[in-house]
Amino acid sequence: MNKKIDTAPYKGVRDFYPKAMHLEKYLFSTMRTVAERFGYVEYSASPLEPAELYRAKSGEEIVNDQTYTFIDRGDREVTLRPEMTPTVARMVAGQKRELGFPLRWYSIPNLFRYENPQRGRLREHYQLNVDIFGVQGLEAEYEIISLASNLMTEFGATPTDFSILVNSRKVMNDLFQNLEVSSGNQHTLSKLIDKKAKVDSANFKASIEKVLGEKTECFIEALSSSKSLIDLLGPENENIKNLMNLLAMLSRGGLSNVVFSPTLMRGFDYYTEIVFEIFDTNPDNKRSLFGGGRYDNLTELFSSDMVPAVGFGMGDVTLADFLESHGLIPEYSSEVRLTLASVSEENMESVLALAQELRTSGVNVATDTSNRSVGDKIKNTLKLGIPFFVAVGEDEITNNIFKLKNLALSEERTVTKEELVKFV
Amino acid sequence: MNKKIDTAPYKGVRDFYPKAMHLEKYLFSTMRTVAERFGYVEYSASPLEPAELYRAKSGEEIVNDQTYTFIDRGDREVTLRPEMTPTVARMVAGQKRELGFPLRWYSIPNLFRYENPQRGRLREHYQLNVDIFGVQGLEAEYEIISLASNLMTEFGATPTDFSILVNSRKVMNDLFQNLEVSSGNQHTLSKLIDKKAKVDSANFKASIEKVLGEKTECFIEALSSSKSLIDLLGPENENIKNLMNLLAMLSRGGLSNVVFSPTLMRGFDYYTEIVFEIFDTNPDNKRSLFGGGRYDNLTELFSSDMVPAVGFGMGDVTLADFLESHGLIPEYSSEVRLTLASVSEENMESVLALAQELRTSGVNVATDTSNRSVGDKIKNTLKLGIPFFVAVGEDEITNNIFKLKNLALSEERTVTKEELVKFV
Repeated sequence: MNKKIDTAPYKGVRDFYPKAMHLEKYLFSTMRTVAERFGYVEYSASPLEPAELYRAKSGEEIVNDQTYTFIDRGDREVTLRPEMTPTVARMVAGQKRELGFPLRWYSIPNLFRYENPQRGRLREHYQLNVDIFGVQGLEAEYEIISLASNLMTEFGATPTDFSILVNSRKVMNDLFQNLEVSSGNQHTLSKLIDKKAKVDSANFKASIEKVLGEKTECFIEALSSSKSLIDLLGPENENIKNLMNLLAMLSRGGLSNVVFSPTLMRGFDYYTEIVFEIFDTNPDNKRSLFGGGRYDNLTELFSSDMVPAVGFGMGDVTLADFLESHGLIPEYSSEVRLTLASVSEENMESVLALAQELRTSGVNVATDTSNRSVGDKIKNTLKLGIPFFVAVGEDEITNNIFKLKNLALSEERTVTKEELVKFV
Repeated sequence: MNKKIDTAPYKGVRDFYPKAMHLEKYLFSTMRTVAERFGYVEYSASPLEPAELYRAKSGEEIVNDQTYTFIDRGDREVTLRPEMTPTVARMVAGQKRELGFPLRWYSIPNLFRYENPQRGRLREHYQLNVDIFGVQGLEAEYEIISLASNLMTEFGATPTDFSILVNSRKVMNDLFQNLEVSSGNQHTLSKLIDKKAKVDSANFKASIEKVLGEKTECFIEALSSSKSLIDLLGPENENIKNLMNLLAMLSRGGLSNVVFSPTLMRGFDYYTEIVFEIFDTNPDNKRSLFGGGRYDNLTELFSSDMVPAVGFGMGDVTLADFLESHGLIPEYSSEVRLTLASVSEENMESVLALAQELRTSGVNVATDTSNRSVGDKIKNTLKLGIPFFVAVGEDEITNNIFKLKNLALSEERTVTKEELVKFV
């Protein structure tokens, strides 16, 4: 008992004290409201998954170096899920015959990555995942992007606060084919494009040159704007046409901040065509907030049935940073509205009985029947963020007259029990 | 891509498909409502905790054999939390000066135990944890037990469906002292009493005899009823008096199903005095549903400050079993109220626009704009558990007249868009 244990949480994860938890609950409830409005229902799963779920599509290296993976005592290799998409594909494949399509699902799982914690990158974070299954047409992308945009505005962002960048993996493949890039080099170039924003243009050009040689100018020109890319591939290119159709639908649907961005790649290999990203337009903080896309092949890990899918993931840490930098974090207020304090030890039970009575009227009531002074009880109520306070003696109960303090406004008013329920 | 991956989840954990998730959400929201009514606010923490958090109070053996513990690449020993109480004690100790007392906190964490899955015992389950800190008096036990009882009735149980068993660790210590039991044997006897319900009385007696010899009769007699125990220790015993005061308070507070039960021990070693348990009185299913007690010493793991605490944990698996056996599980209904289906490919966008309009009126709307038949779209809507369905053509939109199908009742009524919002 002599050596004391540190009260810090495990490295890179968060403790949610009530104020932090209140913000998380606000984020989650807003996510739920918007997802359900678009017809999505919630599912969930354990953070423990068989490691093979990630090996197949992510490769040995990612599983070994970037995930928490260990062997259990039944010799099973277990991974703490680093992303939700393989899990949702597993669940959909598992009950494909029982489920109705189009299937709209969302979840808010915690995800684990084994990396060095830094701003916006923790070892555990929460991520809203929204996915629609069974829709081959563009209405799936239209809906998912509309929903993502709706989420941003529901959180208080205006359409000028963010851009919606859109691109097509198939268009990029056509560009590669047009320039006769070998498939090995396609992967290298994709990764270079994905990191373009992080290097200056001279360095970007130099690294492209190593792969493409004399085709470099043409490649960089094609990526420089959607117009250049369309000029190169021609407006009759099927994949360009599909992408332009989506942009037109989104525009008719009222989204004014959508941009065809040829350098948008998104990290995951499983995307098959349209990818998109919500991008913070704040000049001091230009960066990707979240994104997603179409992944039509993921259920083939589990069965020969293909289920078309479009979805995205929105992380809580990046979202909270965005809301904070835009002044959109709501103020904390406790779910508990009132402290009933006893004035002496003798009236403890009458305070407890009154609290119980108020609870049946729907008021969230805390009590303080300690032998501390009323002044100390007020201080503690303030520390707890509870807005109202009443000191209760036998007189108050007998006469049904209570002095209700509003601690935030330093106001006091005299009320009956019935009025108290209304005010609080 | 040839070898397919199994769609089953990891051994002993659950996938929450939307219907199962709907039940979990019902359990959690009822827990939140009742906890907040009593003045409790929600906190949370990561399931990853330093292993030393459990070693100190639970011992090497439990950490090694009954928890998921592994070494991370920074050579830290990490445990997936098997219970929440050490975490909440860590968090309270960590910000003791900033927090206001009495402090009322609740959380609904998932907990991990490495054991063979069986009915009611999974490798991962959720558990409501409710704890009050900083109250030395019996009003803490009174409140926590009242809250536990209120939870049961909020879920639809009647007071005859369950008993509230109460005992005192201090009374048990007095019994041991009265019989001059050595401290080593006290621990052995406690474990035997804890398992009493699982063995027949002859076996119980035999195992007690091995420890107590000629004192066995007296010991078993003392445990046979509260009256016998009070007779032995005397009604003036301070710890008996404290326990009887609590029983009297609970009785005055309207709880009719509280029983002083000398054989109630509860598993955790950290309880210091009052322990209690909610017990299913169903003759086919007599068993402990959940329980808790006072633990005044746990924050001393982290600092020399002692913080008195009373709390309990209520698991989701046992609770759902109880509700199911009492017919108290609510029926599933989807949060999504309506499917809007297109009748042809041409009117896809007008369906999407109408859906968006209804959403701004607060209706949760799914769309089906596939080229399947309307009959197939109705079947899928039924599979999804969505109660209402409208097939939308251009005529419907032009004339503002829609045929609204209530699929559960096989009813159809003709409504305008505005009436539709009201009905759904």
